[in-house]
Amino acid sequence: MTAGFMFPRSATGRASLVPPPPWHYSGQMLTIEYRTDPRAVAELLPAPLEPAADDPGAVAVIWADWQSCSDSFDELLDPVRSQYMEVFVVVRCRYRGEHYSRCVYIWVDKDFAMVRGHHQGYPKKLGELYLTRAVRVGRAGPRLEPGGRFGATCAAAGRRLIDATFTISGPSEGAGFVNALPMIHHRYMPAIESDGSDSLHELVTMRGYDAEVGPCFTGEATLQFHESPVEELTRIAPQEIIAGYWREVGTSWRRGTTLEREQAPHVPASEVAR
Amino acid sequence: MTAGFMFPRSATGRASLVPPPPWHYSGQMLTIEYRTDPRAVAELLPAPLEPAADDPGAVAVIWADWQSCSDSFDELLDPVRSQYMEVFVVVRCRYRGEHYSRCVYIWVDKDFAMVRGHHQGYPKKLGELYLTRAVRVGRAGPRLEPGGRFGATCAAAGRRLIDATFTISGPSEGAGFVNALPMIHHRYMPAIESDGSDSLHELVTMRGYDAEVGPCFTGEATLQFHESPVEELTRIAPQEIIAGYWREVGTSWRRGTTLEREQAPHVPASEVAR
Amino acid sequence: MTAGFMFPRSATGRASLVPPPPWHYSGQMLTIEYRTDPRAVAELLPAPLEPAADDPGAVAVIWADWQSCSDSFDELLDPVRSQYMEVFVVVRCRYRGEHYSRCVYIWVDKDFAMVRGHHQGYPKKLGELYLTRAVRVGRAGPRLEPGGRFGATCAAAGRRLIDATFTISGPSEGAGFVNALPMIHHRYMPAIESDGSDSLHELVTMRGYDAEVGPCFTGEATLQFHESPVEELTRIAPQEIIAGYWREVGTSWRRGTTLEREQAPHVPASEVAR
Amino acid sequence: MTAGFMFPRSATGRASLVPPPPWHYSGQMLTIEYRTDPRAVAELLPAPLEPAADDPGAVAVIWADWQSCSDSFDELLDPVRSQYMEVFVVVRCRYRGEHYSRCVYIWVDKDFAMVRGHHQGYPKKLGELYLTRAVRVGRAGPRLEPGGRFGATCAAAGRRLIDATFTISGPSEGAGFVNALPMIHHRYMPAIESDGSDSLHELVTMRGYDAEVGPCFTGEATLQFHESPVEELTRIAPQEIIAGYWREVGTSWRRGTTLEREQAPHVPASEVAR
Repeated sequence: MTAGFMFPRSATGRASLVPPPPWHYSGQMLTIEYRTDPRAVAELLPAPLEPAADDPGAVAVIWADWQSCSDSFDELLDPVRSQYMEVFVVVRCRYRGEHYSRCVYIWVDKDFAMVRGHHQGYPKKLGELYLTRAVRVGRAGPRLEPGGRFGATCAAAGRRLIDATFTISGPSEGAGFVNALPMIHHRYMPAIESDGSDSLHELVTMRGYDAEVGPCFTGEATLQFHESPVEELTRIAPQEIIAGYWREVGTSWRRGTTLEREQAPHVPASEVAR
Repeated sequence: MTAGFMFPRSATGRASLVPPPPWHYSGQMLTIEYRTDPRAVAELLPAPLEPAADDPGAVAVIWADWQSCSDSFDELLDPVRSQYMEVFVVVRCRYRGEHYSRCVYIWVDKDFAMVRGHHQGYPKKLGELYLTRAVRVGRAGPRLEPGGRFGATCAAAGRRLIDATFTISGPSEGAGFVNALPMIHHRYMPAIESDGSDSLHELVTMRGYDAEVGPCFTGEATLQFHESPVEELTRIAPQEIIAGYWREVGTSWRRGTTLEREQAPHVPASEVAR
Repeated sequence: MTAGFMFPRSATGRASLVPPPPWHYSGQMLTIEYRTDPRAVAELLPAPLEPAADDPGAVAVIWADWQSCSDSFDELLDPVRSQYMEVFVVVRCRYRGEHYSRCVYIWVDKDFAMVRGHHQGYPKKLGELYLTRAVRVGRAGPRLEPGGRFGATCAAAGRRLIDATFTISGPSEGAGFVNALPMIHHRYMPAIESDGSDSLHELVTMRGYDAEVGPCFTGEATLQFHESPVEELTRIAPQEIIAGYWREVGTSWRRGTTLEREQAPHVPASEVAR
Repeated sequence: MTAGFMFPRSATGRASLVPPPPWHYSGQMLTIEYRTDPRAVAELLPAPLEPAADDPGAVAVIWADWQSCSDSFDELLDPVRSQYMEVFVVVRCRYRGEHYSRCVYIWVDKDFAMVRGHHQGYPKKLGELYLTRAVRVGRAGPRLEPGGRFGATCAAAGRRLIDATFTISGPSEGAGFVNALPMIHHRYMPAIESDGSDSLHELVTMRGYDAEVGPCFTGEATLQFHESPVEELTRIAPQEIIAGYWREVGTSWRRGTTLEREQAPHVPASEVAR
């Protein structure tokens, strides 16, 4: 028997790239909501997912500056294993009459966060991600008050993909409606036979627990997507900015629920491929 | 329908972190073979895998300085998507009476290579990896001839994990016996229910095709493993160095074969977890 | 005429790696003060600098998680040009009867911060630097209150150089005495003739202006230095921890003052070296 | 007395970011020569430098994939301290009737290479740099023969700055004329008084010794410069591609020669600025 929540599985499990859940998160999030052509959202929703009934072109782009840890809390004392940035794009959809949020693109800057995300169905890639931090002293940063201005960027493979700004206009009750529902994600792993089937093909849902939010602010935002040969962000380019939101968030995550599992039409081979 | 070999699956498939196979590889490899306590190898072999019949404590640590590409060959003109380094640790084992090679630890320095490896059952993490390159002019590098000296290192999470050196003594017919068999790997993804079961739990085997090798050299090697709170390399510390090997390798990969698939005892839920 | 505060100097000056001063800084600092063998401090003080009169073995190691910007404030909206981490080691010394603080080792993680530091006489190298951040919600971080625990690390060239922890015991009036004086630094650039002389060899002093400090906390600290073939930290290894301090700091910097300039004994050549 | 060729200067000199010269280099270089508006070159030449007499709009962009080391050769066994990439832009100019090559922009990916370059007058910044490597086996790379295709890119601060390709058409006697002359560079360091003067302001010249070149190839090239708020490459955008060249190069460097030194009009202060 080898041990470990995630690979590599080893004698003690200590080498696992991701420690076992629950995982705890504390961070700062900037959410920019906008509308794109609803067809560009629809083409990101495989059946049986359907577009949201209302405002089907609504999208949220979110920067999150996280610390996370396991129940051992060890990672907080070796912060290379705790701190990471992520930028993700969320749309809404319907499944069996219920509405969900769904992450369609996402970049992070650490391996443990990347594979932990794959476990949750987030299609994570690596990127170089930045979000201005609010400060309380000095001139090199915005205050959490009207007029406070933030920059937010996303790059991958040496190309700038997203440039955004946010300016606080005042306090807010919430941080938007697009990323506010339980998540619905696919978890995929193609069959090693490379025959077009998936060995893992699940529809899952999840949400965190013990969410705790700090003060929340809203304001005006700008948002630009740039071209890349290996991205499709410009297909969901903004037509109209809705609003921006900044807030501190804490949450924990333990498990999700499998909604559907596609039976991969696979017959174990009797011979080794050579 | 969304398209794409790997996630994210999107309208065109262009955003997929990994392009569809086949994948082509050209690179330089340094292999250092050594013997450790056979029990330390055995504890990395989950049933039904068994230790190799002969020399069960043999291990290979391999540095590979790769270029890779898909059948479009586009990646070769945007080498941020083509070049990567990897360091991996290979042992041998038996399955149904046949011997296989098995990668137990591996680090790479690009996301596409990491997730492509996950598809193949390589338990890849990110690292900061280096291998001296042979040169043909100037003083800043070894020649491919007796006396040529190479350094090879592996770091992850800001900690040096492996230091090695290799000095060419002469030409060689091959590059060792530990990484010379078809690979046998597990592909794992824990169930999102966090109940201790896996949604993906396969035993797979694979090997490349159209392998092409350049001149091969053997020589003396040194190898040191260092401690890390999130690694277990020192459990398989060298007791005796066998030899080192350097060679250029080209290969292609299209598919593997599933040997066994564990049926995860899972019942789709009727309600969303909260 | 080319323009630019720092190189490259160009048509517009826009390409300069560092924008013209003043520079504004806002950040969070963790200071750990300790005592080492006073001889190990003395050997880092070239004449005419002398050891501090009192407590000559006192050293501070400081983590700073900065945002900085020029008077245009543009960098705050493109935070890749604004955010950086630094870890630095400070000792005290005497010059002409006055006491000063002096940075003897320092690592940062951005090029603009590195060369801006060279301008100020900080001997900056690149490193991979981490400091736990305090949070206000969630479980993944310490609160700014007694019991709050922080980790702080420094790595360079793929080797961990420093591991530290800090636990808040209570509020503090200040953040220690080692890094509290005007800085005294050398600015060096060897002559291109490689004859052992310096083309730039200045003793300078400086301090910021408009310093603003937030709440300050003190507590217990641990500190470990690790070996590297290209570092000398273990020569100033801790013999006794004094205390740790955490606080938010804002400051601005416009100029320093040259105290001494060594006249490099150089005669411009009449012929180009070939 | 503290020791060390470059800062930090310390007890043993081991911590110096750059070891003492000579430095040895072995690498692969891709040179793309093109013509831009001669006025755009002229504006990068401060007096007393003048435009080249012939072909004053000629520019070379060069990718170099280096290993370098000191006379100890230690760096070759710890290749994190030996390997780096650089991309640089070279023009020609006249000084006192002689023609020189001059590097106007340059990016590297290691700190030791950056500061070593500052010593030589190269205005180095950090970048994320790539050049396809030629291979001898497999399909994932060009061969050094007609038809071999290379990609070459430069990014900094998360923005792609340069995209280029090169296709070998045949062997070549040399690698172009723009980067073929002794280098003439300025070495600058602004006075810490921030009064617009420089403390270091030298015009220097240098060239390597013991140059050794491997086979050389020429071919067709494409080259695109992209916008950045902190770069000025698009001012010297290509109007006409001359040719591309690939070759292996080895060289060593020990010293340069100071041609002129501007006397900074500076009076040491009698008081510490506060």
